[in-house]
Amino acid sequence: MMKYCFGVDVGGTTVKLGLFTVEGELLDKWEIKTYTENEGERILPDVAEAIKGKIAEKLLKAEEICGIGVGVPAPVDKNGAIERAANVGWMAKEIKKELEELTGFPCVIGNDANVAALGEMWKGGGEGYLDVVLLTLGTGVGGGIIINGEIAPSHRGVGGELGHITVNPDEEATCNCGNHGCLEQYASATGVVRIANKLLAASKEESSLRTLETVTAKDVFDAAKAGDHLAVEAVEVLGKYLGLVVANVALTVDPDVFVIGGGVSKAGQVLIDVITKYYHKFAKIIGDNKAKVVLAKLGNDAGIYGAARMVLK
Amino acid sequence: MMKYCFGVDVGGTTVKLGLFTVEGELLDKWEIKTYTENEGERILPDVAEAIKGKIAEKLLKAEEICGIGVGVPAPVDKNGAIERAANVGWMAKEIKKELEELTGFPCVIGNDANVAALGEMWKGGGEGYLDVVLLTLGTGVGGGIIINGEIAPSHRGVGGELGHITVNPDEEATCNCGNHGCLEQYASATGVVRIANKLLAASKEESSLRTLETVTAKDVFDAAKAGDHLAVEAVEVLGKYLGLVVANVALTVDPDVFVIGGGVSKAGQVLIDVITKYYHKFAKIIGDNKAKVVLAKLGNDAGIYGAARMVLK
Repeated sequence: MMKYCFGVDVGGTTVKLGLFTVEGELLDKWEIKTYTENEGERILPDVAEAIKGKIAEKLLKAEEICGIGVGVPAPVDKNGAIERAANVGWMAKEIKKELEELTGFPCVIGNDANVAALGEMWKGGGEGYLDVVLLTLGTGVGGGIIINGEIAPSHRGVGGELGHITVNPDEEATCNCGNHGCLEQYASATGVVRIANKLLAASKEESSLRTLETVTAKDVFDAAKAGDHLAVEAVEVLGKYLGLVVANVALTVDPDVFVIGGGVSKAGQVLIDVITKYYHKFAKIIGDNKAKVVLAKLGNDAGIYGAARMVLK
Repeated sequence: MMKYCFGVDVGGTTVKLGLFTVEGELLDKWEIKTYTENEGERILPDVAEAIKGKIAEKLLKAEEICGIGVGVPAPVDKNGAIERAANVGWMAKEIKKELEELTGFPCVIGNDANVAALGEMWKGGGEGYLDVVLLTLGTGVGGGIIINGEIAPSHRGVGGELGHITVNPDEEATCNCGNHGCLEQYASATGVVRIANKLLAASKEESSLRTLETVTAKDVFDAAKAGDHLAVEAVEVLGKYLGLVVANVALTVDPDVFVIGGGVSKAGQVLIDVITKYYHKFAKIIGDNKAKVVLAKLGNDAGIYGAARMVLK
């Protein structure tokens, strides 16, 4: 009988692994280092070794294991292959095929942002819903779209790239992607700081942020919570652009719930409130029955949860 | 053997009907008047009568008919029921149940904008693809999202409401929905005229449009094609906002192709070119392999094609 599955989240620094029951209980989680040398040739063998070791340690039987789900930082094609994953050194690689050969278990491969969205749908902020959009506000801004309980198809691998939705065509600064005015320029950790620094430079208004040597995203939210007017203004700018994207995505795929994750989401309810305020302002046509906006619940584990979920259907 | 199906497109003035082969050949099409009186009580009986009449006329056998697909101007729930369709007078109505009782054939009901998108995917501008987004630029601006060959789920009925995506939060004029700066305010037939009139009022520049008593969308495009500088500028504004929405939707659902329909699309290739120009500008992250932007092919028949397609899966 199938009782267990593994979820694997391959990142640039570490690979996270989780052993799950088929009901979605996380029994054990651990990390191994990501060796990116020689085009990341050690990564998949290391993953296979780690899983075999865990099976031995827990005295699991091979026939009890459904398979292995893997989230990788790259677009993934239908065959579980990628063209390139710069973060981990991989060039073109048939991940599914290689890992199945190394482990003997069925493997399902997905893009990490979409996989995290699936995890939050399954056991996180979107639990109980089948149509979920995840926005991850971290170093960059990522997204994932879940429709009918599954990762939405994305032939070019750009589905759910919500961080590069243009929210301000008049922006002068250039985004990493070459565009001007992407959401990521405002809603990433560095984006929040950029907004605050710009406001600080543009006025002489007093602000607790002026006493700091370097301002972090957390500083901006903390100051805003303490009532600092300039920090509140920075949070409003952030909320306006996030609310705009939430509204526009709601008018495209009409999900049940928007889940907000990533380091910036540690700001908590103040972030949800300001996003919701502008979302409602921009999505008047939806009426009262708008999709909820909630905080992510799984933190860095969203990837292993979603990866495990992929092998269960 | 199943050989035929019917596609029905219920509009505020007429109901369009089509008899199709299961391969998608349109054998016959015709219209009946939409009687909206008494909460549109005659509409479904009239549709049933029209279909029965056609079956008799063509000497079709009941067992050769798969069923009837119907597009209606309202959000449709899973049971083929609606809460209200203001355009045709309907209040809460179980359309699927009623029409099945009236005709004896299986019926599938969908929202008209989404159904038109399905039609364009099947036999129109999106033929050959499974992931298609339709933008309809008419009196208003509508949209439909097809994912994996099916209408994307939309629990609140606002999926694909691309006309109400906010493209210019600084707009002072109010959209019908109460928001400011919706795509519809620029890309509908009246929107194009509004942009042109605004540009005419803001400058003293010579323009062939000044000689006209009232300016239509067609006038603006015709003048732009003839090189009228102010008209070209108006088309650029339109293209900028349409390109912005195309880019942002591409980064959300990543379709194979965007199909542009509705009266405004009669402008032709000049419209496709200006949309594509701004789409590429705003979607830098997608790289070279961008979704195509093409003209719709089915015109007013998209609804009956899509409706017929719904009963064939």
